[in-house]
Amino acid sequence: MTDTTRYQRGMDKLREIDGHAGEQVVASLANIAPDFADYLIEFPFGDIYSRPGLDLKSREIATVAALTALGHAAPQLKVHIQAALNVGCSQEEVVETIMQMAVYAGFPAALNGLFVAKEVFAQAAAPR
Amino acid sequence: MTDTTRYQRGMDKLREIDGHAGEQVVASLANIAPDFADYLIEFPFGDIYSRPGLDLKSREIATVAALTALGHAAPQLKVHIQAALNVGCSQEEVVETIMQMAVYAGFPAALNGLFVAKEVFAQAAAPR
Amino acid sequence: MTDTTRYQRGMDKLREIDGHAGEQVVASLANIAPDFADYLIEFPFGDIYSRPGLDLKSREIATVAALTALGHAAPQLKVHIQAALNVGCSQEEVVETIMQMAVYAGFPAALNGLFVAKEVFAQAAAPR
Amino acid sequence: MTDTTRYQRGMDKLREIDGHAGEQVVASLANIAPDFADYLIEFPFGDIYSRPGLDLKSREIATVAALTALGHAAPQLKVHIQAALNVGCSQEEVVETIMQMAVYAGFPAALNGLFVAKEVFAQAAAPR
Amino acid sequence: MTDTTRYQRGMDKLREIDGHAGEQVVASLANIAPDFADYLIEFPFGDIYSRPGLDLKSREIATVAALTALGHAAPQLKVHIQAALNVGCSQEEVVETIMQMAVYAGFPAALNGLFVAKEVFAQAAAPR
Amino acid sequence: MTDTTRYQRGMDKLREIDGHAGEQVVASLANIAPDFADYLIEFPFGDIYSRPGLDLKSREIATVAALTALGHAAPQLKVHIQAALNVGCSQEEVVETIMQMAVYAGFPAALNGLFVAKEVFAQAAAPR
Repeated sequence: MTDTTRYQRGMDKLREIDGHAGEQVVASLANIAPDFADYLIEFPFGDIYSRPGLDLKSREIATVAALTALGHAAPQLKVHIQAALNVGCSQEEVVETIMQMAVYAGFPAALNGLFVAKEVFAQAAAPR
Repeated sequence: MTDTTRYQRGMDKLREIDGHAGEQVVASLANIAPDFADYLIEFPFGDIYSRPGLDLKSREIATVAALTALGHAAPQLKVHIQAALNVGCSQEEVVETIMQMAVYAGFPAALNGLFVAKEVFAQAAAPR
Repeated sequence: MTDTTRYQRGMDKLREIDGHAGEQVVASLANIAPDFADYLIEFPFGDIYSRPGLDLKSREIATVAALTALGHAAPQLKVHIQAALNVGCSQEEVVETIMQMAVYAGFPAALNGLFVAKEVFAQAAAPR
Repeated sequence: MTDTTRYQRGMDKLREIDGHAGEQVVASLANIAPDFADYLIEFPFGDIYSRPGLDLKSREIATVAALTALGHAAPQLKVHIQAALNVGCSQEEVVETIMQMAVYAGFPAALNGLFVAKEVFAQAAAPR
Repeated sequence: MTDTTRYQRGMDKLREIDGHAGEQVVASLANIAPDFADYLIEFPFGDIYSRPGLDLKSREIATVAALTALGHAAPQLKVHIQAALNVGCSQEEVVETIMQMAVYAGFPAALNGLFVAKEVFAQAAAPR
Repeated sequence: MTDTTRYQRGMDKLREIDGHAGEQVVASLANIAPDFADYLIEFPFGDIYSRPGLDLKSREIATVAALTALGHAAPQLKVHIQAALNVGCSQEEVVETIMQMAVYAGFPAALNGLFVAKEVFAQAAAPR
């Protein structure tokens, strides 16, 4: 049922955005819903993120904003804060985006988003 | 209780972003919660949107994303789609931002956001 | 399937809180889900609002806060703003409660709540 | 960018579920985001609803439940209440599904869902 | 204040759906809100799940869908994924229901729901 | 960019409401978004909670209600359950407020709120 072109384009885009996140999501879904890994690579990354009308930096700002505002998606917010850094956002731009969500989704959502960012930035700074 | 500097900075920023929206919100709240109009100008616009760390175009993309994803803020989404156009986003960038929310908040939220955009774009195109 | 004591207690409490709202909800559900009208009177009003541990004024403040924050329940918010006034809240207390929600659910939710309050207060002030 | 097989499968499934809804959504998005109409037909209907592991009746019950609970998607709830009837749910099953959401998303979400159902059932009963 | 018939009917239904979940919820609420355990057994299980108009399998599909979509109720989703299996849903039907929520509530909500299912299925498979 | 009067008023109010919470939030944000700590003290506490039109007990009931209903803000709910006790709410009033949210946001949100309260009350009761 998989569509090679969309899947390949999605996997390439996901690799461009977040290194090994593609492999990880495929692995994490392998024994519960492997087809869902295909959809996740094909629709969000093969279709949406691959479209030309909005640059990747703006796409990641939009995603960090939305995930902060929704408030129930901390694991995905973590991935996309790292992705935002990977495609050229500064830590400051990420922090500003999250802070701004206090206006639209309240202070708790923004606070919880900032604590996720703090964790991502700390991992990025840690010696490996 | 108002702080002139923040209020003035907020009103200037709001005027830069959305023309007469500042006057309209002050008027709409005048006989129910006039102090809330002050807070709305001071904190979101005098504090947050006036910060240097993220350009206005990115701020409006973040806001359009969040309001689309939250799904209960059509009137404010309408204002910020217009604001996004005012600070330099193309209609295509607005549409891409809203479409992307299908991934994070589902197709109904994205669809409803697109219909708000359609209305804003139609008003912008109408002869006055 | 109805439990007369709980139903009667709920209807009495609903009448105390909001005059004819009980009759209206029964009527509005009559040809779609009449049992749901029973549940609505029995559980929220016969069970919860009839409990002694929190006064009715505080209960209505809690409800106005929650419905403003959730953002998708304007018709019910309208009913409970009127109910808050009926059980002794001042218009100022209602407005303060709604304004405070800007902190926890964002400015759009608070703004939309204030506009519902404006409508309720206007109806209350209108000559009959 | 469209994938004929998924698109065709999605359009067929959408026609099976809801008659002319496919044509209507294509038309409504034509001058704002035509590609989004493709995605809407391809991913939800060509991919998800076309999967064999869950019958269409159960899929529509799941969707009516989710849209009622989310609370911000009345237009889509309307479409899927009609779709539920089309694929074999009785009006009673739809009403039971919506009523049950009072438990998980609160009485206002369930009430608003019931009023949408009332509207759909009335249209279905109206002479044409 | 408890109503023996509804309470008993609810406890029986809860036992039918999820074995010892009734006893566990009574115990967990014992020293904080014992009356809430009564309400939880009486209204959701004694009133709603005991109604004849929708079979238990469909009721659990509706609940798994809603809890996945809402995104803030992982502990309850866990209970109801197990309950769905108990009343006759296959693991595949549960997974399909959760995957479908990507369409209505976004990929993060569906992903988080799938990871809860993975955990429940693993516990079910573990030797005791 | 800080406004001494609002900041000082906010810090005083926060100290009145929750002892050392002000210092803790300043510390937790120090190396990620120190300006956000200023905003958090200035707008919610210096502006909103310092307003005369609603007593602090009612403000905390409103906040406990909203945070329970939103469902994604357990850390902040924990702080405000303690704050409610600090400004004069009884444990019973807190429990009643949270239980009531079952009506407006569903049983899972209320249950999760009760478990947060249980934790706060246990800490309050623990010998130090």
